[in-house]
Amino acid sequence: MNKVVIFGVGLIGGSFARALKAAGRVRHVVGIDRSEASMRRALELGIIDEVGAGPEVVQGADLVVLATPVAQTGRILAALLPHLDARTVVTDCGSTKADVVAAARAALGERIGQFVPGHPIAGRETNGPDAAIPDLYIGKKFVVTALAENPPEAVARVTDAWQACGAIIHCLAPEEHDKVFASVSHLPHLLAYALVDDIAGKPHADLLFQYAASGFRDFTRIAGSSPEMWRDISLANQAALLTELDAYMAQLAHLRERLAAGDGATLEGVYGNAQRARRRWIEAIEAAEAPPPKDNAE
Amino acid sequence: MNKVVIFGVGLIGGSFARALKAAGRVRHVVGIDRSEASMRRALELGIIDEVGAGPEVVQGADLVVLATPVAQTGRILAALLPHLDARTVVTDCGSTKADVVAAARAALGERIGQFVPGHPIAGRETNGPDAAIPDLYIGKKFVVTALAENPPEAVARVTDAWQACGAIIHCLAPEEHDKVFASVSHLPHLLAYALVDDIAGKPHADLLFQYAASGFRDFTRIAGSSPEMWRDISLANQAALLTELDAYMAQLAHLRERLAAGDGATLEGVYGNAQRARRRWIEAIEAAEAPPPKDNAE
Repeated sequence: MNKVVIFGVGLIGGSFARALKAAGRVRHVVGIDRSEASMRRALELGIIDEVGAGPEVVQGADLVVLATPVAQTGRILAALLPHLDARTVVTDCGSTKADVVAAARAALGERIGQFVPGHPIAGRETNGPDAAIPDLYIGKKFVVTALAENPPEAVARVTDAWQACGAIIHCLAPEEHDKVFASVSHLPHLLAYALVDDIAGKPHADLLFQYAASGFRDFTRIAGSSPEMWRDISLANQAALLTELDAYMAQLAHLRERLAAGDGATLEGVYGNAQRARRRWIEAIEAAEAPPPKDNAE
Repeated sequence: MNKVVIFGVGLIGGSFARALKAAGRVRHVVGIDRSEASMRRALELGIIDEVGAGPEVVQGADLVVLATPVAQTGRILAALLPHLDARTVVTDCGSTKADVVAAARAALGERIGQFVPGHPIAGRETNGPDAAIPDLYIGKKFVVTALAENPPEAVARVTDAWQACGAIIHCLAPEEHDKVFASVSHLPHLLAYALVDDIAGKPHADLLFQYAASGFRDFTRIAGSSPEMWRDISLANQAALLTELDAYMAQLAHLRERLAAGDGATLEGVYGNAQRARRRWIEAIEAAEAPPPKDNAE
């Protein structure tokens, strides 16, 4: 590609730019970010070649990538629409899709076919251009939630770019995507945030944190994520998240009742079922995800 | 020490034996395990020097260490009592302490002073002699919950041994210990088990697991732990765990209500508070835990 414009030059957008460059698949990357400091830093690090002054920089782009909090999607698309060439394809990296599609339809109207929604399943709890690495997406999934209006060549331009970054392409409908990620991603984030906030609010929080160890650290790693981003995701995927949260709260109420009854057999049954299911899952991802990431930080 | 007897030659007991040997602090280690295969394997790996035939092997021991599920504490102590020299000190590695102390008092009677309860704060989701490593405890906490009946030299024999393994010694009362660990360890384990079991029970579980990624993997790592061990811990620390679970369920009910109301400000407030508290905690443990572990698997 000749020109790629990236909105949001942090971990996700910056790593995409680095990966595309490492693969030799782009000649010129323009970055736009609401933080002046991030844009300057991304330029300094060679993640981008040009700091974009405003949405008019999308003119002449082959691909425009939104790597910004999902709640900003509509506003950004509306701002860039007047400058959007007919041949440009726009995509996003949002963790929710139904709301992004709705915002895109509202902003782009009859030009919705140029917008191919997507979601790279990769991340860390670090943010900003300095966190961006070229191999973040190697062996990871990229979920494309293509629309009926997308021409096949527009979808291909997006999936080809992500494949060049090392990602494995998966297809889901936007609503299906949101239900799946409410279960395996959005709910765990809410649960981890809730636990840390719960402990931090206790009068003896300092004593408690003093004895928290590696199990607690891993369980709560996702509570190190951006609160703004996860506020947006929670609200954007409200209905599916409420459904999953209700199921989980019912599960906890059941376990609470069994624990109070001293029912060790039921507790061991639930724990054992979870242990076996998790082991099967780990074995399946180890078998499926190839090639392995080059660093050990995933 | 001349002779150390270890009940349970898996990750915890085996790593203790390896560490003591590596530090040159023991001449002869006897291992006893309910699994014949584990005992043979521990002997083969050089973790122990002798397979113990029965509880009579505690005769002549300087230190006896129980590294077995907490529910077995009373039975093991009762079995070894007839063979226990007056100068031998017994300790344990149980994740709960009030129940262990009660079981020990019932089993040992007036000889309770020989039992110094303890809890090494280290672990992995792997089990068995093959998982045992000499540096598991380096830089980790060992919590001693000494009893009024323990002579200072008995406590010192236990803490000296753990210090030789690289652990940092902390003191708590048994009940205080149990409240702290209900909050930062036992509750997170129950929550992780509950989530994986919840997802595994859904009709589209395979689809869900297919999209679970690194955040889910870390959040649920502790659900890979032994179901039997965590059944025992849950029941042994029932009262404190119920208290923590109730507080957490109230927190979830509050967040559910705020999410349903679309109250992004409150969600962001909770998420942000959690993120900041976790960052402070990570910075504090990084500053406090020295020297760093020699491997990166903690």
